[in-house]
Amino acid sequence: MKYPNALKKVQKKQINYAHRGMNLEEDINETNQFYLINNIAVIHKKPTPILATKVSYPARNEAKITEGFFTTPSTTDYNGLYKGKYIDFETKVTQSKTSFSLKNIHNHQIEHLKKIIEHGGIGFLIVRFDRLDKTFLLKGETLIDFLNKETRKSIPYHLFETDGFEIQCKYNPRLDYLRIVDKVYLEEI
Amino acid sequence: MKYPNALKKVQKKQINYAHRGMNLEEDINETNQFYLINNIAVIHKKPTPILATKVSYPARNEAKITEGFFTTPSTTDYNGLYKGKYIDFETKVTQSKTSFSLKNIHNHQIEHLKKIIEHGGIGFLIVRFDRLDKTFLLKGETLIDFLNKETRKSIPYHLFETDGFEIQCKYNPRLDYLRIVDKVYLEEI
Repeated sequence: MKYPNALKKVQKKQINYAHRGMNLEEDINETNQFYLINNIAVIHKKPTPILATKVSYPARNEAKITEGFFTTPSTTDYNGLYKGKYIDFETKVTQSKTSFSLKNIHNHQIEHLKKIIEHGGIGFLIVRFDRLDKTFLLKGETLIDFLNKETRKSIPYHLFETDGFEIQCKYNPRLDYLRIVDKVYLEEI
Repeated sequence: MKYPNALKKVQKKQINYAHRGMNLEEDINETNQFYLINNIAVIHKKPTPILATKVSYPARNEAKITEGFFTTPSTTDYNGLYKGKYIDFETKVTQSKTSFSLKNIHNHQIEHLKKIIEHGGIGFLIVRFDRLDKTFLLKGETLIDFLNKETRKSIPYHLFETDGFEIQCKYNPRLDYLRIVDKVYLEEI
């Protein structure tokens, strides 16, 4: 084993970040699984789009990708159906304690959320401030309103506190965001 | 001199099949693009799920998949939003002139369609009988009803004629299935 210490350090750091980023995704996926099993909602993560540039066929009816690249999604990560309503959202994790950088969201994802709202769907962000251990639902309308009024490239944390809705972490489901959807979107109808 | 002709015939046929199978997907994708551009609906094809088993990093921030496999989708291929309604469907092409084999649809896709209907969404199949040049929308309800009543492993063509809804091919949009959705699902409300 050569240079084990240096290698270990770098790996540890990478694993930590990846793990942290992964946690929100895992929380959402397990929550969606809970919703599906308990017949509450049908919400799935879309597969990561991959461009397969080389494919080999080691056996009949078996395709193996030998070269491929991750491509940019044209929509948000999650969508589905809850109480007859179309639900659509993107999840993001930030390491900042003070703001959420808009670099985290692609323009076409914002355009997508605008269209969802326009066509009568429910569109939002779920943002986790990892170091503060806080997770918020931010309505798509609030995001778009901020973008229309502000020139800043990041949304300050206090906007999440005032205009967002905190989602508490629980045991099961881990992140019951549909309870917030009920409160924010469905009770006011 | 029979041999080369026979071969030519088979090859021609195969090329036709591949091209034709692609056509339905292309027709739907172009139609969805038309709907999106003209602000009629927001319906996307889900990316094909791929399990990346080996990933290399030829440069910083650049990931290259060097080994990956296509995996089975857990839902249908298309979903989205139209007039405030959740839309979900699967597309299939058959070369049979007499029936549509149920082998074409995975069990979990049928379960998914059941859940969509149960939660107030609109779920259906779009099936093209390639050699008859006919494309039908078959309501998820009709499919489930057939599966409950019948032990047959294929849906006869005449059921599409009697209980399905033909979608005419046009210039633009190529396959205006939302006109059928209007007629079948929305006018009766």
